[in-house]
Amino acid sequence: MTRVERAKKGEITDEVKQVALKEGLSAEEITRDIAEGRTVILRNNTHEIEPVAVGRGLKTKINANIGTSKDRISLDEELKKLDLLVELGADAVMDLSTGGPVRDIRKLMLRKSPIPVGTVPIYEAALKAAEEYGSIVRMTADDLFDVIEEHGREGVDFITVHAGLTLKAIEHLKEQGRVLDVVSRGGAFLVEWMIYNERENPLYEQYDRVLEIAHRYDMTLSLGDGLRPGCLADATDRAQIQELVTLGELHQRALEAGVQSMIEGPGHVPLNQVELNIRIQKEICRGAPFYVLGPLVTDVAMGYDHIAAAIGGAIAAASGADFLCYVTPAEHIRLPSLDDVREGVIASKIAAHAADIAKGIKGAWQRDLEMARYRKARDWEGQIRMSFDPEKVRRYRESVPPAETDVCSMCGEFCAIKTVERALKKK
Amino acid sequence: MTRVERAKKGEITDEVKQVALKEGLSAEEITRDIAEGRTVILRNNTHEIEPVAVGRGLKTKINANIGTSKDRISLDEELKKLDLLVELGADAVMDLSTGGPVRDIRKLMLRKSPIPVGTVPIYEAALKAAEEYGSIVRMTADDLFDVIEEHGREGVDFITVHAGLTLKAIEHLKEQGRVLDVVSRGGAFLVEWMIYNERENPLYEQYDRVLEIAHRYDMTLSLGDGLRPGCLADATDRAQIQELVTLGELHQRALEAGVQSMIEGPGHVPLNQVELNIRIQKEICRGAPFYVLGPLVTDVAMGYDHIAAAIGGAIAAASGADFLCYVTPAEHIRLPSLDDVREGVIASKIAAHAADIAKGIKGAWQRDLEMARYRKARDWEGQIRMSFDPEKVRRYRESVPPAETDVCSMCGEFCAIKTVERALKKK
Repeated sequence: MTRVERAKKGEITDEVKQVALKEGLSAEEITRDIAEGRTVILRNNTHEIEPVAVGRGLKTKINANIGTSKDRISLDEELKKLDLLVELGADAVMDLSTGGPVRDIRKLMLRKSPIPVGTVPIYEAALKAAEEYGSIVRMTADDLFDVIEEHGREGVDFITVHAGLTLKAIEHLKEQGRVLDVVSRGGAFLVEWMIYNERENPLYEQYDRVLEIAHRYDMTLSLGDGLRPGCLADATDRAQIQELVTLGELHQRALEAGVQSMIEGPGHVPLNQVELNIRIQKEICRGAPFYVLGPLVTDVAMGYDHIAAAIGGAIAAASGADFLCYVTPAEHIRLPSLDDVREGVIASKIAAHAADIAKGIKGAWQRDLEMARYRKARDWEGQIRMSFDPEKVRRYRESVPPAETDVCSMCGEFCAIKTVERALKKK
Repeated sequence: MTRVERAKKGEITDEVKQVALKEGLSAEEITRDIAEGRTVILRNNTHEIEPVAVGRGLKTKINANIGTSKDRISLDEELKKLDLLVELGADAVMDLSTGGPVRDIRKLMLRKSPIPVGTVPIYEAALKAAEEYGSIVRMTADDLFDVIEEHGREGVDFITVHAGLTLKAIEHLKEQGRVLDVVSRGGAFLVEWMIYNERENPLYEQYDRVLEIAHRYDMTLSLGDGLRPGCLADATDRAQIQELVTLGELHQRALEAGVQSMIEGPGHVPLNQVELNIRIQKEICRGAPFYVLGPLVTDVAMGYDHIAAAIGGAIAAASGADFLCYVTPAEHIRLPSLDDVREGVIASKIAAHAADIAKGIKGAWQRDLEMARYRKARDWEGQIRMSFDPEKVRRYRESVPPAETDVCSMCGEFCAIKTVERALKKK
């Protein structure tokens, strides 16, 4: 039996109890939310990791993407990135490798990662088709399902399947016109395949096969948005919303089949449309967990897209998004370096944490209160401990040491906190 | 006659015409907004710079703080920071020097800066009192007004005066209690002075003198929030709002005296209180321009406070804030380095730009559309040109050059845009 099936029967599992303890919610509530499709637990039933829950009333989770491309293949570097993002507090990792021995890389990640691992099977299927048949378009549906099955068997905890990208959605795309048609890699592969073969998306047409495999391993489906907007001008258009409607339908079918699923969302969205995007998803998809990429609130932040994504991500999560995919400073330019991964994870953590405070998530507020008290006490070690990147704070502090050790070198002796403390004591 | 006085008479000056041209608004509208206190133009009538307007319906402006402290005094470095922040597109700069020859530094800044320069005169007055009398509390009101007069005469375009920080506000502070009482440096000096001398704040008590000086040089008053919250727990409390009420009164008195003024705002504010803070300011202060510091949406982003501020700043500006003071990664730790200034200015520019798109500011959208078109065309030089930090984007791109030059090394040959372009051409 899968989690959803157990939850529907009202069975409260040890796994749910474990999650409930971490989240500060009751196991009964979480069980009901799993049964009704509002919360998922990311863990393949063959994968030995701590389960991570994503959904209603839970701490906002963040995911970090890593992986090779043909232009940069270093297993060692990818493993270092994995260690780093785990250390910085990422809740999940996606291996998006498309260069080198992708299967070996994935297996290594699955073995080494203490947090849930996600993949996008169409990448590997496309790679194989390109290698074996000379083109992605010659891939067969069976090729694709074989890869999905393999990922499930190996222990992948969640997979992106762009099953809502239908021929009808492509028609919307063509008739409406876009500035940047498709920016999802998996989406693009499928669009080319469908147009070339004049056939429906196998992930949609044979969605039952997807569900069967996911059911076998209790693997969570991340219903991909192949038509997510790639620039502000394309945001919230008919193609995007058409796909969202289909994703809502697929989420319901998954739930009925006892399979967990979440919905993927944009992308590039103007600041004043972010909340709207979350609310429409929550309505159309009946409260399904929402996993957003960014959203980036401007297209021009190249080199600093982690900041554009932190703005959009914070607003999205405060409006109800459950899971943020990080964006690094390297987005739109190159694969991220170790430093980019650090910047990306921390920007995402800040966004998620700010949103958790706004949403009133249990315990979120406490950390800020502690920081404020350490600040009041000018307790530098305490402040360093409370921060997301203690090493950086320490390095900064030591670079310009203040003459008086209980203040900082910004105000030096003219420390406001110290001045007012002295003044208030006087009376 | 001052700008406000001319505007009240309906006189449309060349300066306003110049501003109107840059902003894409009519000179009549801007003139009316100046007359009614909703827009200010930052320029001392003796300072030869391009005027910068802040207020209703205008592009969100950003300010960068620089200056020495006793722990770090390097004129050369401060001038480099000035050049850098101007190059990166800051709209104004504040010289907050409190170490070394502060008067010489300010004069140099005023001579070198092509953008408006702001100061906080109480800093220099406090410094002088500490040097001459051994303590800030021995400063006389005349000492303070002498410094304000001097700043005006030298050409400072806007000054922060914490005139709303009254004995009554301090009573609120004491009776309510706060985690972090006062984090404004100028505010802290005044609190200590008031408590020690058992006297009202001279900036409040002799506000007419402030107005007289400001009037003489057509210098804009930035009505400082000495009681701005220094942590989320203190946000939107009675002390803060009491001071805001007084600031609203002072803004009106300034307008009646023909003097421009804007209101300074927080600080540290939970994400879900940011919009509220802007809306209450706009109501209480009758649409006066709002100049916010951050706001930081979490207290724990030390080392990355520019990101916490970009989140809060974007939401604030989208809700109506007109002027964002940048926050750098060094905030709460040390004076910013050149790199910190770069990160701070760009984070603030991203926040302001994202908000301008959301607010529908003329022309804001166009830049993103151009970027998207360059992206579609895989025109790398175009994309680099559209970005905030072209040098960084170029460096990133060159660090991992893709095998195919029209794509990036993230997806390499599996470029979504290229794939779909090929597919859509097929049919």
